Amino acid sequence: MGNCIQGCKDYFSRQKNTNIRLTLPVVCFVWQIAMIILFGVFIRYDEESDTHWVETKAHENITSDIENDFYFRYPSFQDVHVMIFVGFGFLMTFLKRYSFGAVGFNFLIASFGLQWALLMQGWFHSLDPHTGKIYIGVESLINADFCVAGCLIAYGAVLGKVSPVQLLVMTLFGITLFAVEEYIILNLLHARDAGGSMVIHTFGGYYGLAITWVLYRPNLHQSKRMQGSVYHSDAFAMIGTLFLWMFWPSFNSAITDHGDGQHRAAINTYLCLASTVLTTVAISSLSQKTGKLDMVHIQNSTLAGGVALGTAAEFMISPYGALIVGFFCGIISTMGYIFISPFLEKTLKIQDTCGIHNLHAMPGVIGGIVGAITAAAASESVYGKQGLINTFDFTGDFKDRSVLTQGGYQAAGMCVSIVFGVVGGAIVGSILKLPIWGDPADENCFDDEVYWELPDEEEEHQESIPPILEYNNHMIHKQQDL
Amino acid sequence: MGNCIQGCKDYFSRQKNTNIRLTLPVVCFVWQIAMIILFGVFIRYDEESDTHWVETKAHENITSDIENDFYFRYPSFQDVHVMIFVGFGFLMTFLKRYSFGAVGFNFLIASFGLQWALLMQGWFHSLDPHTGKIYIGVESLINADFCVAGCLIAYGAVLGKVSPVQLLVMTLFGITLFAVEEYIILNLLHARDAGGSMVIHTFGGYYGLAITWVLYRPNLHQSKRMQGSVYHSDAFAMIGTLFLWMFWPSFNSAITDHGDGQHRAAINTYLCLASTVLTTVAISSLSQKTGKLDMVHIQNSTLAGGVALGTAAEFMISPYGALIVGFFCGIISTMGYIFISPFLEKTLKIQDTCGIHNLHAMPGVIGGIVGAITAAAASESVYGKQGLINTFDFTGDFKDRSVLTQGGYQAAGMCVSIVFGVVGGAIVGSILKLPIWGDPADENCFDDEVYWELPDEEEEHQESIPPILEYNNHMIHKQQDL
Amino acid sequence: MGNCIQGCKDYFSRQKNTNIRLTLPVVCFVWQIAMIILFGVFIRYDEESDTHWVETKAHENITSDIENDFYFRYPSFQDVHVMIFVGFGFLMTFLKRYSFGAVGFNFLIASFGLQWALLMQGWFHSLDPHTGKIYIGVESLINADFCVAGCLIAYGAVLGKVSPVQLLVMTLFGITLFAVEEYIILNLLHARDAGGSMVIHTFGGYYGLAITWVLYRPNLHQSKRMQGSVYHSDAFAMIGTLFLWMFWPSFNSAITDHGDGQHRAAINTYLCLASTVLTTVAISSLSQKTGKLDMVHIQNSTLAGGVALGTAAEFMISPYGALIVGFFCGIISTMGYIFISPFLEKTLKIQDTCGIHNLHAMPGVIGGIVGAITAAAASESVYGKQGLINTFDFTGDFKDRSVLTQGGYQAAGMCVSIVFGVVGGAIVGSILKLPIWGDPADENCFDDEVYWELPDEEEEHQESIPPILEYNNHMIHKQQDL
Repeated sequence: MGNCIQGCKDYFSRQKNTNIRLTLPVVCFVWQIAMIILFGVFIRYDEESDTHWVETKAHENITSDIENDFYFRYPSFQDVHVMIFVGFGFLMTFLKRYSFGAVGFNFLIASFGLQWALLMQGWFHSLDPHTGKIYIGVESLINADFCVAGCLIAYGAVLGKVSPVQLLVMTLFGITLFAVEEYIILNLLHARDAGGSMVIHTFGGYYGLAITWVLYRPNLHQSKRMQGSVYHSDAFAMIGTLFLWMFWPSFNSAITDHGDGQHRAAINTYLCLASTVLTTVAISSLSQKTGKLDMVHIQNSTLAGGVALGTAAEFMISPYGALIVGFFCGIISTMGYIFISPFLEKTLKIQDTCGIHNLHAMPGVIGGIVGAITAAAASESVYGKQGLINTFDFTGDFKDRSVLTQGGYQAAGMCVSIVFGVVGGAIVGSILKLPIWGDPADENCFDDEVYWELPDEEEEHQESIPPILEYNNHMIHKQQDL
Repeated sequence: MGNCIQGCKDYFSRQKNTNIRLTLPVVCFVWQIAMIILFGVFIRYDEESDTHWVETKAHENITSDIENDFYFRYPSFQDVHVMIFVGFGFLMTFLKRYSFGAVGFNFLIASFGLQWALLMQGWFHSLDPHTGKIYIGVESLINADFCVAGCLIAYGAVLGKVSPVQLLVMTLFGITLFAVEEYIILNLLHARDAGGSMVIHTFGGYYGLAITWVLYRPNLHQSKRMQGSVYHSDAFAMIGTLFLWMFWPSFNSAITDHGDGQHRAAINTYLCLASTVLTTVAISSLSQKTGKLDMVHIQNSTLAGGVALGTAAEFMISPYGALIVGFFCGIISTMGYIFISPFLEKTLKIQDTCGIHNLHAMPGVIGGIVGAITAAAASESVYGKQGLINTFDFTGDFKDRSVLTQGGYQAAGMCVSIVFGVVGGAIVGSILKLPIWGDPADENCFDDEVYWELPDEEEEHQESIPPILEYNNHMIHKQQDL
Repeated sequence: MGNCIQGCKDYFSRQKNTNIRLTLPVVCFVWQIAMIILFGVFIRYDEESDTHWVETKAHENITSDIENDFYFRYPSFQDVHVMIFVGFGFLMTFLKRYSFGAVGFNFLIASFGLQWALLMQGWFHSLDPHTGKIYIGVESLINADFCVAGCLIAYGAVLGKVSPVQLLVMTLFGITLFAVEEYIILNLLHARDAGGSMVIHTFGGYYGLAITWVLYRPNLHQSKRMQGSVYHSDAFAMIGTLFLWMFWPSFNSAITDHGDGQHRAAINTYLCLASTVLTTVAISSLSQKTGKLDMVHIQNSTLAGGVALGTAAEFMISPYGALIVGFFCGIISTMGYIFISPFLEKTLKIQDTCGIHNLHAMPGVIGGIVGAITAAAASESVYGKQGLINTFDFTGDFKDRSVLTQGGYQAAGMCVSIVFGVVGGAIVGSILKLPIWGDPADENCFDDEVYWELPDEEEEHQESIPPILEYNNHMIHKQQDL
């Protein structure tokens, strides 16, 4: 027994092997082939994307092609798509030498995740009981992108410390957990969460935090030199920030009700985010001796308002209500970067590379609470009789639910998302701790060198350099590794 | 009296204090709270974004949700939104060491500006006399973004020379002036200006030029080393240029009439901009000994055609007419960078960092003139009877206006925008001259160091460097400050 | 005779003159003026963008402005527009010192090309026989952008080795050839090719390859130092990759049928591209000793799926079918970069800077084959009777065509596009070989220095540097020329 433990210890502490030439291709091939088979068995076009639409139209007395759901949702879908690949991808390029990993692995796991999400969400939400098929349309694509967002949030916590194989595993389980908690929250509890404060951000945030907590690296300081940003990488990351910020109104309105639902969600999110920017700047300036601003805050906390309005965006929270939510989110999220992140790392041993606790977890919880309160406070005088029914979908089994009850279920939904995030993350983290995934050694974290063929920037003038300059040259190279 | 003047002089010429730790947070907090209160009092959802839309639909016999204005305008809105935050923001990153300020302050003032614009434009254009409320929808958001564009243009003139507090003050007054001149031009004079050649670009251009004229810095050459671009910052700025260029058809068509109005405005702007690129390249190449191209021209003058078609985009200017406008704008704008900008700086003491005179002021005036001429030349044979009425909105009080009269009012509108820009800018400039705003000293202009915590790129290898290399290293650092 | 040959040889081998101060402005001005005249003679607004639309609506009993084609296609158009200018432009910035040329010349030739394309495509596809006019609307703009894409693909093969004047000539002929082959394929053969696997990618690919084959430079190794990427340029190029990747569903669905046609094309492309990413990563990892990924593959091969689904995207290829196409394209395209590109360069003397053979030519041919097979395999049971007619446009002269025949014509179409590309490219290449176009010498290829005024990054500290450091400094500069 003692031997076994010792053996295990040795096994775990041996020199890290980051060779992924076997695992990565195998995982990619096998999973992609699995996707093809499962899609072949389960996935079909829905009636609005099938050539039989011409018959559907005649049958349902639809007069114009423009009433195809495609025209209601495709512009929002494309905005969401940009958020997933450019927004999340570039936001994470702030590290001085991890741009390839940030954008490239984001690209990889999102591409896998959206396929798996179509299946998982399909099985839980839209499996036709008669045919056993899942019928997909543009709304399915948006939901798949949403589902992926949860995993990309989690990626932010472990950025630079895991291998692409670990990320794929993390995504596989993340999507699975997501589909289940989403089913519980939206279908069983019948909570509303169009922009995913709870379902996406709270879950994704705690999922990532739990994983990084399990994967705690006590000697991470060994790669401290790679952990910061440089001037250009910070400017680069603003591409991500801005595309997230600008398109967040599309994110929160992408799957809300046609007509006023989408319209209102976009307005609310637009206002809320504007308000967040001002308070983020205020707190960031307050936090420095001479009032200078910190790019970390501008890159991240300015987005917290969008997260926090994920649930309530479609409600009649009213324009000033949206501003108030943004106001507090900017403050809380920026304070999080200043006070809470160091505390989490030092005391709770949670190493959160991108600060997703401040950008997703906390604002997500705030969003859940805001949603619960505004739902509970909804009234027929504000919403109109039919408006109340439409907004909260008080139909079928839920046609007699009161707004107060709804508020309670909203709160319950938030708890579900936290529990799924924390417990699921802890379990998945333990799986990722197995020493078979090719993760980098502590001193090689945050370095693209490990998983990427880097362009050779130095070769050409190494031959003829006199010794003193050689040394100097060496200094320069270190410096140039921005 | 003499003492007083001496005292004032001393006060003004003392060492600059760029500490904004008090002013910036106070301004952000107070103004944001003011916004919340004013929104609470005045701003409500309009009938298309309110849950009562279901009743409106029934009442107005609207058969499908797709006829909600959201679906007519939201894609264009998002394009405009990208222009405001990514377009304007990144266009200004061309300076070697002012990317944070360019993108970050652009972000800050646009976020404040759009809130204030919703109020100001609401009071002037859409205050309901019965309820005392302003009802907002997607078109209000577009107009708010437009309004902000005027102030961001002005930012281009003072880029690198002012503090964020000054920028916020400049925005507060800029939005206010904008709403008034817009009211005069569009409502009182009943001029047409869908893409804002006059209202946005001419006003914004002269507003910024007047401010920078008042804030003239005779010793700006002290920060000459920071004033240029470097290779990467120039490439970076092309992100801004291209997003502005590509989405300009959306800008000019965003608030034109449903149907053919939006369709035609997009086509005209698309063609006009293509033509501008060719003549910009031609003049740029002509201006250099060996025909090399200058990035400053490509980044800026290629956009002049969009500015100049702001007024006439929705008219029947015809495709070749749009090409002609673009043809001349490319020439004039590029010539402006080569000849007029140096003249303005040397003779008129106008230090125009981004050359907004060439990109916005002049093309804006051209746009106003083009608009006046094409309006005056409009005929029933070309437009059709109803088409003429729709295009120029000859209804209500204006139903008997002739196209010639309309042309005259268009020209009058342009004069109003120039006067508001110049006079308003001069006054606001004087306010910004007060020594309380934390603006940078002449030798610190164009340097992010002043208002931003910059990542520490050099620390790690300063300890063990031998003296000769230290010196050398110092050279390198200077060099590396790209 | 011998003398003449010698004279010619001397003429061709003399010192290269890259002065384009005469040719570039002349070409730009003359061509732009020609465009204005031709637009004046031929181009008019179509009925949906004309002020007479109000009458058309009444006449055709259209109840709502939302049925204007603008609202069906404008969001897709803007996505395509971004692909053309940002996507293609930034994808080519991967070279360490050719970002200005990549983005800037892309901008120039696309701006000229789209004007010329409106005319050429108009003459061939939509010249009104009665009025002799071409009527344009949003679909014409999309088609013009598509046409330009063919030439931008060809630019990828000669990137860094030609002058802007050559590029303009190449575009002039490219657009012309494109319009003819498109007319033959789509109109005469009545093949379907909504996303342009054959018409755009196969043609553009072989056109560029043939040109670069004719322009073969045996001594290109002299500019080897400039031929690679650096860390930042690779990250920059990912902006291009991602915008192409994200918006490809819009590309393939932009001009498909209203309703289910656009809906299905977007879904298919979305799925296909996701699948491509996984197999690209797998093969890229397999190709390196330790499983590291290569940015060249990630930047390019991930897009091959979009190319290969250009023809079949609107067909009922079914979701798993789309995944299968993507699966193989990722493999083949990445293999192309590893094995075929070196072979082409060494054996066939084809110097293909961006590897367009792997990204466009091969996947384009695959797309043509997939299209032919899926067309031949179409059945009424899958498509529905009316669906089959709509999808393949079996109306008018073609109303009795069988799906098998259709499959044959699809295959014939692909041959036409290859022939046009190869023969046309060889001829145009010969024209571009004339020594009058100002192309760079072998040792100056891939260097922005030749055609651009570059910012002066070194000036300030050259005076006082001691000799030893001078040398060292020189090294640094070389190094800094990233």
